[in-house]
Amino acid sequence: MTAPHSSWVTSANDGLTHFPLQNLPYGVFSTASGAPRVGVAIGDQVVDLAALDEAGLLPVAAKGTFAQASLNRFIALGKPVWSETRARLRALLAADDATLSTNATLRSKALLPMSTVTLHLPVEIPGYTDFYSSREHATNVGRMFRDPENALLPNWLEIPIGYNGRASSVVVSGTPLRRPNGQIKLPNEARPVFSACRKLDYELEMAFIVGKPSALGEPISTGDAPDHMFGMVILNDWSARDIQQWEYVPLGPFNSKGFGTSISPWVVTMDALEPFRRDNPAQSPEPLAYLQQQGRNAYDISLEVALTPAGAPSPTTVCRTNFKAMYWTMAQQLAHHTVSGCNVRVGDLMGSGTISGTTADSCGSLLETTRNGAEPVTLAGGVKRGFLEDGDTVTMTGWCQADGYRVGFGEVSGQILPAIATA
Amino acid sequence: MTAPHSSWVTSANDGLTHFPLQNLPYGVFSTASGAPRVGVAIGDQVVDLAALDEAGLLPVAAKGTFAQASLNRFIALGKPVWSETRARLRALLAADDATLSTNATLRSKALLPMSTVTLHLPVEIPGYTDFYSSREHATNVGRMFRDPENALLPNWLEIPIGYNGRASSVVVSGTPLRRPNGQIKLPNEARPVFSACRKLDYELEMAFIVGKPSALGEPISTGDAPDHMFGMVILNDWSARDIQQWEYVPLGPFNSKGFGTSISPWVVTMDALEPFRRDNPAQSPEPLAYLQQQGRNAYDISLEVALTPAGAPSPTTVCRTNFKAMYWTMAQQLAHHTVSGCNVRVGDLMGSGTISGTTADSCGSLLETTRNGAEPVTLAGGVKRGFLEDGDTVTMTGWCQADGYRVGFGEVSGQILPAIATA
Repeated sequence: MTAPHSSWVTSANDGLTHFPLQNLPYGVFSTASGAPRVGVAIGDQVVDLAALDEAGLLPVAAKGTFAQASLNRFIALGKPVWSETRARLRALLAADDATLSTNATLRSKALLPMSTVTLHLPVEIPGYTDFYSSREHATNVGRMFRDPENALLPNWLEIPIGYNGRASSVVVSGTPLRRPNGQIKLPNEARPVFSACRKLDYELEMAFIVGKPSALGEPISTGDAPDHMFGMVILNDWSARDIQQWEYVPLGPFNSKGFGTSISPWVVTMDALEPFRRDNPAQSPEPLAYLQQQGRNAYDISLEVALTPAGAPSPTTVCRTNFKAMYWTMAQQLAHHTVSGCNVRVGDLMGSGTISGTTADSCGSLLETTRNGAEPVTLAGGVKRGFLEDGDTVTMTGWCQADGYRVGFGEVSGQILPAIATA
Repeated sequence: MTAPHSSWVTSANDGLTHFPLQNLPYGVFSTASGAPRVGVAIGDQVVDLAALDEAGLLPVAAKGTFAQASLNRFIALGKPVWSETRARLRALLAADDATLSTNATLRSKALLPMSTVTLHLPVEIPGYTDFYSSREHATNVGRMFRDPENALLPNWLEIPIGYNGRASSVVVSGTPLRRPNGQIKLPNEARPVFSACRKLDYELEMAFIVGKPSALGEPISTGDAPDHMFGMVILNDWSARDIQQWEYVPLGPFNSKGFGTSISPWVVTMDALEPFRRDNPAQSPEPLAYLQQQGRNAYDISLEVALTPAGAPSPTTVCRTNFKAMYWTMAQQLAHHTVSGCNVRVGDLMGSGTISGTTADSCGSLLETTRNGAEPVTLAGGVKRGFLEDGDTVTMTGWCQADGYRVGFGEVSGQILPAIATA
């Protein structure tokens, strides 16, 4: 007898894959011969949901939403359809299935090795918001950029601070990014110079994707917030520290962030993450009433960042941390975002802010790990990095560890290309 | 013989209308019986472009793009099609036209009194960026919120400062807005309170709409920037000053702005604005190379703001100013926005920042006009306003004055509804 959570796709059962039967994350993929469409990851395979839909194997309520270049139409159908589709997929991919596993023709059409497909941005993102919810990160940054004695700004413990990011430049894992040019103010110069960024950094974040919209003028409570979340991805909020420091007062980061943000291609559903909820972090002072929360809104997600210089023998892990330590929860972020009446839309991307611990090797940015470049990290092969150099690849990964299996996010990676030559 | 610029739509010829034959701004409208579609304003009428397209009177290259709920598909066709369509519309609406003016059946179908239609948001907005390009405004705000002696921040004369706004809550003129609730820090309290905004304000801005996209990693030069602009609207960047002051350090305004932004319904094309270009403002220090510009990128647009309390006998004009005084031009804004490699998309909305002069009655916000509420303005009927009260309607209008005609923007207006009651 097979285990109740095993799949006839055997690569899903090894206990290490990020994509066992318990996960079933959604993404958008294409093949050499086919247009982008919706798929689900299982082991080292991708299930073509457009093909299953065409074969009449998916819920009628979802019909036609998978032969699409983004998940938005499927997501917009709402939670009951997400649940029904997930249940159907679990049944179709379970070890005891006879519908799909024994239909060789359909299986060859609907089950594709992940290594043979191209993954695309999974959602069309109408809005991208980035929060700043790790106390350790906010403290580390405040210590370096502002006042070491009062590193945490007075509003930080009251507000899940966030700001609007640039949605146009959100790209899927694997997309290389050019080092940005911009204005940099050097300490001994009266005026800024125009230069390629000299302090290029990553930021390790998680992000949730809005699954249920809200109307303008109608706040979402912390209690209702989880119903508005479809799933999560890993997010790399690439940051040009020198450009940021010169531009960010008074309206916040702009060109230092807008040149690119990378996300992982597979959206792990909140349903799949349910077993990994944890108690909310202690908060002092007690938040204002609209930010108070019931239930368990923290999630136990192990996270790692690795650096691979061009030609390096192997990646070097430079950060190990966990999402559960975030001070402000996603429910609080969404309640705060909408308490003014601001509306959210299906596909909105909400970044957590950099996820950092208290030690150098648990910080989610080089700014923190290397103390603004002063204490470089040593990588495999002996090379050192204060900030990113051209050709470097940054790879972030994350997973929830259960007894005998993992629900994982795969990875988000990106390589740095040289800046466009300046005049 | 009729004047060369007169129309058989006689209301377009009175010299005062915002919508003469020289303007022909695009919008999206619906009637009781019909879905939203693209129209053009002429005098007090709206021309239904979907109807003209169906009748085969518009350029073949634009076919099918007008029976749409936004201008995006038409705009995406590019400048040659914009020009061809504009020329065709000018011919069809000119006094000497015999095609449309003499076809009573088509005319009754395609020409609708503006008072009978509902106007919608003209574009789907993938990204909303707001700049901060009036030196007077930045100085006035810096004086009140930061250091009166060094009101202008060091980066302001180097960078056309901008930040990402919230696109989801951009609404069309006429949409009422709820007063936002949020966190407010009162001077004598240790902790913030949760309250309805007590310092609700407007901000008078112009905005341009991107007509030609750019690729990630490819900057747009100041010289190419005008080719990327489709047209302009008036924008009211509603602002909750008390929420703003507590939240904005270090990542910029968020809930204080995200509850709503209003734009005028008619997009005035850059073609129509061409005669109103003016010399660029003097800039000192000379900007960095990527911000230097040729040509004339300032525009002479007269602007007014009026307040009408609920039940007031008449509106009171509280601001008269002009767009031509802005320090940073739209070409510089777009060059700066993309110099990092950030891409732009068709329909992106780029706000100018508040447009203020040096006197109280030329300031584009109540914050400045009333000096943070300390010197209220007196309205018709004797009532005073430091900031906006529930029931107040704010109406902004703007036009370019030529010899014998105006190219106008119509107006953007919005009424303030009471906040949702807080627990």
